Order: sequence, then C-alpha cells, then structure tokens
Amino acid sequence: MLKLILAQINLTVGDIDGNVNAIIKTAQRARDVYAAHVVAFPELAITGYSPEDLLLRFDVLNSVEQALQYLLYAVPDIAIILGYPRRYGAAVYNCAGVIYQGRLVAEYHKQALPNYGVFDERRYFNAGECPCVVTLQGLNVGITVCEDVWFSEPIFNTHAAGAQLIVNINASPFHVGKHSEREAQVRQRVMEVHIPILYLNLVGGQDELVFDGNSFVMDATGQITHRASHCVEEEIVVNLDIAGIESGTIALTPSNEMAVYQALVLGVRDFVWKNGFHGAILGLSGGIDSALTLAIAVDALGADQVEAVLMPSRYTANMSNEDAIAQANALKVIWHKISIEPPLQTFVTEISTAMNIELTGITQENIQARCRGLIMMALSNQTGKILLSTGNKSEVAVGYTTLYGDMAGGFAPLKDVFKTFVYKLARYRNTLQPIIPNRVLQRPPSAELRPNQTDQDSLPPYEMLDTILHLYIELDKSIAEIVTAGFDLTTVQRVINLVNHSEHKRHQAPPGVRITQRAFGKDRRYPIVNKFYATT
Amino acid sequence: MLKLILAQINLTVGDIDGNVNAIIKTAQRARDVYAAHVVAFPELAITGYSPEDLLLRFDVLNSVEQALQYLLYAVPDIAIILGYPRRYGAAVYNCAGVIYQGRLVAEYHKQALPNYGVFDERRYFNAGECPCVVTLQGLNVGITVCEDVWFSEPIFNTHAAGAQLIVNINASPFHVGKHSEREAQVRQRVMEVHIPILYLNLVGGQDELVFDGNSFVMDATGQITHRASHCVEEEIVVNLDIAGIESGTIALTPSNEMAVYQALVLGVRDFVWKNGFHGAILGLSGGIDSALTLAIAVDALGADQVEAVLMPSRYTANMSNEDAIAQANALKVIWHKISIEPPLQTFVTEISTAMNIELTGITQENIQARCRGLIMMALSNQTGKILLSTGNKSEVAVGYTTLYGDMAGGFAPLKDVFKTFVYKLARYRNTLQPIIPNRVLQRPPSAELRPNQTDQDSLPPYEMLDTILHLYIELDKSIAEIVTAGFDLTTVQRVINLVNHSEHKRHQAPPGVRITQRAFGKDRRYPIVNKFYATT
Repeated sequence: MLKLILAQINLTVGDIDGNVNAIIKTAQRARDVYAAHVVAFPELAITGYSPEDLLLRFDVLNSVEQALQYLLYAVPDIAIILGYPRRYGAAVYNCAGVIYQGRLVAEYHKQALPNYGVFDERRYFNAGECPCVVTLQGLNVGITVCEDVWFSEPIFNTHAAGAQLIVNINASPFHVGKHSEREAQVRQRVMEVHIPILYLNLVGGQDELVFDGNSFVMDATGQITHRASHCVEEEIVVNLDIAGIESGTIALTPSNEMAVYQALVLGVRDFVWKNGFHGAILGLSGGIDSALTLAIAVDALGADQVEAVLMPSRYTANMSNEDAIAQANALKVIWHKISIEPPLQTFVTEISTAMNIELTGITQENIQARCRGLIMMALSNQTGKILLSTGNKSEVAVGYTTLYGDMAGGFAPLKDVFKTFVYKLARYRNTLQPIIPNRVLQRPPSAELRPNQTDQDSLPPYEMLDTILHLYIELDKSIAEIVTAGFDLTTVQRVINLVNHSEHKRHQAPPGVRITQRAFGKDRRYPIVNKFYATT
Repeated sequence: MLKLILAQINLTVGDIDGNVNAIIKTAQRARDVYAAHVVAFPELAITGYSPEDLLLRFDVLNSVEQALQYLLYAVPDIAIILGYPRRYGAAVYNCAGVIYQGRLVAEYHKQALPNYGVFDERRYFNAGECPCVVTLQGLNVGITVCEDVWFSEPIFNTHAAGAQLIVNINASPFHVGKHSEREAQVRQRVMEVHIPILYLNLVGGQDELVFDGNSFVMDATGQITHRASHCVEEEIVVNLDIAGIESGTIALTPSNEMAVYQALVLGVRDFVWKNGFHGAILGLSGGIDSALTLAIAVDALGADQVEAVLMPSRYTANMSNEDAIAQANALKVIWHKISIEPPLQTFVTEISTAMNIELTGITQENIQARCRGLIMMALSNQTGKILLSTGNKSEVAVGYTTLYGDMAGGFAPLKDVFKTFVYKLARYRNTLQPIIPNRVLQRPPSAELRPNQTDQDSLPPYEMLDTILHLYIELDKSIAEIVTAGFDLTTVQRVINLVNHSEHKRHQAPPGVRITQRAFGKDRRYPIVNKFYATT
C-alpha cells in the first residue's frame, strides 16, 4: 500500500526561502503525522507560479538550483515530488523532480507548454520529450505537469513507459467552470489509459490569477475518489495499491456565485498581504459595486484592516450616503466622509479663469472622479493601505470610467465581473448576512456625476450590454454574428466602438482577479493603435 | 535585368482598407513611374505589425482574406511580394505571398517565430517548414520573413531550393544599435550562401514600438549596395541580374543621439495621429525632461498642435518659470500658467480636518503632483489633445515619480530614455537650434516638491544610477555581478529594491517609445507580487 499526500498549498512568487520552508514543513508533517511514503507539491513550487521574466535571470535560476540541492537532504525518509525551473546550458525546463534520501531520483521535463491566454511558457521553457516513471513502494508512478494532461500523447507515453498511476502537478488558474473542465479532461485521459490520475493544483492569488486548488484523485474507471476544497490550503491523503484506491473525502463543488466570491476574496487577500500593504481603503458611493468590494475586502482582510470613505458632491443623493453608511456599519468598518465640493470648485474656477474657457460637462465629471481618486491616494500614501478600485468589467470594457479617477487604485477586485454578475454576487453575499441594503440592489445604477444621471442614459441596459460584451470580448464574435444573436446593428457597433476606444484606459488600469476565460490584462493583448473596427 | 522596389512604408495596425490602398498606390507607382517588375512590402503589411490578439479573431482573418483576394487583381503587370496572416484550418501562418496577374503565385510561411522580448509570435502562428522560391524575370527569388534571416537553416534551405537572391521582408523594431546588428546578421547569412539578400523593413510607430526602416541591399560579397533612410518612408530601387547589383544610394547611419531622437519623434507622431488625437499638451516645469519632451512633440506634430502648461507651486524657483517660458517661446508654442497652490491647500486642509491627521511630507508631495495631473487631464478632456507624460527611464525604474501625478498621460516619450541620455538628446537637439537654455542643462535636477529639493537627495548620482539600472534591468545582472562592476553593495541593493517595489506603478504607466533592448512594458514582464530580491 502506497500512502501519498497531495499538498494543495499557497506559495509566493520569488519567495524561494519561504516556499522551501513551507515545502519542508509540509513534507515533515506528511512523514511524521501521516506516515506517508510520498508527498507531492505543485508546479514550479520553488519559485511560485508564474515567475514571468524572473525566469530569464540567471541569479533566480541559480537560487532555485541552490534551493533544490538543499531540499535533497532536508527531509529524509519520504519521497518528495515538486516543480521547479532548471537550466541546462541554453535551455530551461519546467521540471518535476522526485527527491528521496539525498538524491534526485528522477526529473521530468514538461512537454506541453501553454503559450496562449495568460500563459507564456514558450517564452521561458524548452519542451521536454520523454516520459518519466519512478517506482515508489513497488508501484510505478508516472509524473506529468499541468498542460501535459490536456493532451493524449504525454499521458499515453507515460502509460506506455510502465506507469500504473500518474501524478500530475499543476498551477492551473481559476475561471468559472474551470474545475469541471479539468475533471472532464482528466477523465478523458483516464479513459484512454485506464490508470488513476492524481491531479494536484496550487492554491493562492498571484497578481491577476487565482489558483483555486480543487485538487482531485480519479481512479482507473474515471470515478472521483478525493477532492480538495476550493480556494483553501488542504492536503489530500491517498492510500492506494495495484488493486485500487481507498475512497476519501470529496469536497462539494460550490455554486458559480460562491466559487467566484471565494476566488475574489482569496485574490484580494493574497495581493494585499503578499505585497506588504497595511490593509485596504476604498471609496464607498452607496452603489452596488463599492458595496460588494467592501464586503470582499472585509472577508479577505478583516473589518479592522479596512476603511471606507464617502466623498459626496452636490449630485450625491441622500439615500446614497445613507446606504453607504449602512453598509459600512453592517460590516463594522470605520468610515470617513470628505466632500469633494471644495476642491472641485477650486479646480473649475481656476482652470476656467486661467484658460478663459467654460469647462464642458464631461471635463467637470472627470474632475469630480479625479478629486475622489486624489483624496483616496492621499489616504493610501498616508496609511500604507492599498486603494481598491471598485469598477466592474462592463464599465472597464466600455470605458464608462475615469482614468486616475474611479480607476485609481492598486487592485480592482471586480475588474473581470460583469455588472449583471455583480448583482448576483451581492445577493449571494446577502444570503450569508444581510449587509447590502435592498434599495442598493434595486435602484437604477448611477455614477452621480450630474443631476439625475443613470448609467442607462449612456449605455444599453446591462443585461443586453453584458451579453454583447461577452460575445465580443470573451468569444471573439464578429459584429455580424452578434447581430444574428439578436441585437440591433447600431447598438452592437456602438458597444464595440466603446470597447476599442477605451483600450488606452485599460492599458493603465490596475490588475484585478481573473474569473473568466478572457479577462482584461495579460489575457487579452490588444493594440492601442487599432483601426480594425473603425473600418468595418 | 530585374527591377525591384523595396517599399519601406508606414502602415497602421488594423487599418486593412488603408493599408491595402497604400499597397495599391505604391505598386502602381512602382510599375508606372519606375517600370519595376516587382515591388515588395513589409511583413504583415495587410494588418500592420503587430496586430496582437486581433490575430485570434476570425473576423479579422476573414477581412485579411478578402483583402488578399482583392489585391490579386488590383495591380496587373507587376509582381507584388507582401506579408499577411492567413488561416488554414486550425493553423495560422505568418505569410509572405507573391501576387502576379490575378494569381497567388507562391506563398511562404515564416519558419522562425520569435517569442521573446516584445515578440509573442508563437501565441499566434504555426511555424512553416518549407522554403519558397519563385522565378521573376528569369531570376530565382527566395522569400523569407524577418526572424528567418537570424538563423542559418531557413536561408540555407532557401538557397538549396535554388534561390539566386533572397528578399527578406521584415517588421523589425528599433533599439539603439539595432541597425548594425541587422546588417551584421545578414552579412553572416550572405557569407554562408553567397547570394544577395534584400532586407526590407517597415517604418512607423505602433504603441511602444518604432519600426525604423533602414532597409538595405547586400550583394553576394557582403557589401551594402543600397540603404534607405532612418525613420522615414522611402523606396529602394534595385536593378540586378545574375552578374550583380547596380550600385545605388546608401543612406548614412545617424549617430545614436540622432537615431534615438528621430525614433522618438516618429513614435510620438504616429501614436498621436493614428489614435486620432487633436495634438498634444504637456506640463512644462523648467526642467530638462519636459523641455526635451516639448521639443519632440513640436518636431512630431508642429508647434501649432502643441500647448504647454506651467503649474508652479510655492516650491517652484523663479528660474524654473523663466526657463519654461523661454523653452515655449523658442519653440513658438502657446503656454498657459495655472498655479496648483489653491487646490493643493484645499485638499490638504480638507483631508487633514476630515481625518483629524497631519499629512506627511510624502503625501503632500504626491498631492502636488496629482493636482498637476488632474489639471492636465482636464485640459486634455477639454481639448481632445493627448497629455504627454515627461518621465524618463531612470525615474520610472526606481519609482521616483507619482502615479496619477507626473505619470499621468496617454504617452510617455522618454519612458525608455535614461536621465543621462536625456541630457545627450537635449544637447543634440540644441545643435539644430538653441531651444533649451543652458541653465536647464546645468542645474541639478529637482522635482521641486519641497524646499531646496534635488533628485540626488533621494537617489545616487545619475551616472551611477543609470549604470546600475542598465546592468540590472537591461542585462539581468545579479547583485554580486553589479557590485563586482564597481558599486557598493548598499547602493546596489537600495536601487534594486526601489526597482522591485515600483513594479505596481509601472503596471499602470502609459506606454512610451522603446529604444533599448529591454524597455518597460511588453518587453519586461515582471510579476507585481515578487519576493525574490526581498530574500537576497
């Protein structure tokens, strides 16, 4: 009987010492508490995922090499499977090594290197060409890395090389539905080779990405025998022999709302703490976006680490202030109130006088948003707390947002969440505890930058807008295809023009948590100069 | 005798109709004015370079296909060589086609796909595997694309397939010294195959990149027979037969200062006009960075399209205002003056009162910079002119700059220019016309955010700083290697810490012109959460 631990742990990019310590502690516990024979760690565990251009640096690769040499002797009497980058002459491989009793028993080089979406692995790595099988407790264990399991060949070859089970170590980022895609993909491989596959994923936030865990074990018939939880550190203890796998704990799959909410919380928590900020601040408008962002921040960091600021102007409705205060109080968050009227008036008077012009409505609206941005950044500078920007994906997509104004901030939790889904998340969070007043969920959304303004003065209804945006941005559909899906040409063209004309704003947007298959950021790389849709 | 035109032209990403029209007009002129047999256009001429993720869209690829079909018949009686992306099932190739009399006579698929630095070609393209040789006027002409010429194999195979000369079409971006690297590389290929290589490059700015032209013809002995100019549209007319190449015009290679200055001018001009802005504005401090940026803007757009704004505070020296006015007047640029004292005082009073705190010096300095950013953005909104940010690479590297303050803007011309090189460029520009007062070149640089401040209060001398930054950022040297190069450990660690702790600022920085081999932006992809240098 082989006892194997899949360690779904949270590592930090670049923190080689910290990651090595976490690996050692976990391996010791696996040996001493569980009496395990083997413990496995995620892809690129020594560096964290993804180190990006740190991988081009010899000093980084040399430090990894030293860490690897140190790990060889660090935890005797248990086999360790773990990921790291390693240089061989001019080539660098994405490796999975097997360490036992001071020896690197085997080393696998990842064969399938993703170079799409958020992945740039061919920028850094050479592809391996050979399967890797090691014998542990009399069982032949094949080792593969992440993308390998999405293709038949690497798994087929590993089986052909004698593997009786496969341990696939991953750094697979979250998007809605990703978890079931992974299990379906692994099931397809299992059906091809008829051996168990143990799928170990990283957990934790790294800039835009959240690694959601959800590690699992699938037996030779395609049944799930173990599943770790979503977005938390956890260890899966697997007992297996040639006859089969002892059944274990299977975590329930969360709803989409719960899965996304927890991913956003983890993404915010890790971005804030791993970057060394002393908590978070945000502007609380009384609207739905800042209400949800506040709840996420509190769940991520604790109410005592978060402060909210109301910044009313003459256009701010009384109920907006009331609702903002109600939200802050419900979450037990300190709030402050700073009017933007005095600086706004000073700017408007001074600029119009100096230039001898009358400022347009749009200019004045932007000044309002930027006065708020300036106040929040001053408080961020003063306190060392990160400013969270509260914009959602619908706004960021069409540029219904002010650069250096409401876009100001170090992190934008809702950046990849469409407005219609913001409402769903808010309702979900209210099921745990009623914190967002019903009025906030029911009022027509408004930027409150001019009298009686609503978002729908400038934009199509959000149900329609979000569908068009989904088709255009996430599915790459053409104008004609979107029209065929049931929208009028003028609206579709207007939306697409708005998206393309706000590329320069997104270029300067803070990062946010990726929850879809096509997030703004490293996932979607559009030129700023781009006349394609100007001519169609 | 074969008469061939290399058309070094300026195309626009996504502007398929516009690019096709430019191709047609140039081809007609090549035929009707020069009586040429062949005209060649750059890599991805139909889409412009680089379309980035537009290449993932079927609507874009379908439009390219339609454009290609249209081009087949557009210009009879001359052969056209040009680049475009083309889809074959699930694969997309970076193609060079040869069109003649309504037929696609031949199509080459680029074999060497760069996926490093600013290039992501393996994200988009499959690699071709075959050489391509066509017979034009009795000569066997091999076709290759850009990166192919940096490797022996594609050129060797093209020669082996019978080529008597090679036309290599490119979209090769500028950095200092790139032009001579290209010629050295092509000379190496010529020495391997002993046939002429005609190197055609794109010209023009696209976001961060400037394609500098500098197309050239090298004969079978490695001698340059033709060279087009730097950073302008130009056509090279080549007459050649089996015996050799008629000698032509060889443009002189500009000095590094001239080459960079002209690249910055072209980069600004194309970013502003191709994005449809109505000119440019910038804050003029009296310092060297804004002085140089103003000169670049004027040379790019014309003095009547540029406006300068002085935004003094109590810390602004009189001579700063005097020098700023002298610069604007020397360049015949309209200038305005708006004091930041009133809004600054309003913010400081209001925030400290509301929060019952005293604002730190840093917070107040940042408020000053952000008041300026806000004023400039208001004027940008009001006028439709782009705000140019004036920060240089040294500042951007160490974060000696305020996010949403002096970093505000749509484009940052000096973003990749170290401070020491800013001085060289300013002196170079003054040799053409004395526009930057000597005092500006001689005063110790200062942000003027507190009394008697100079940059060197916070930073090592720029000569030292820029060398350390060059070693760390551009050459990926380790701390130990930089110390060995003659710097003290404390200084090196401090500089590297500053660089790593300002990654979040650069993430939100405007794009600027790339002039080095490692510019901030798509060229250098560092994680924000990154503890590597925290632990070394």
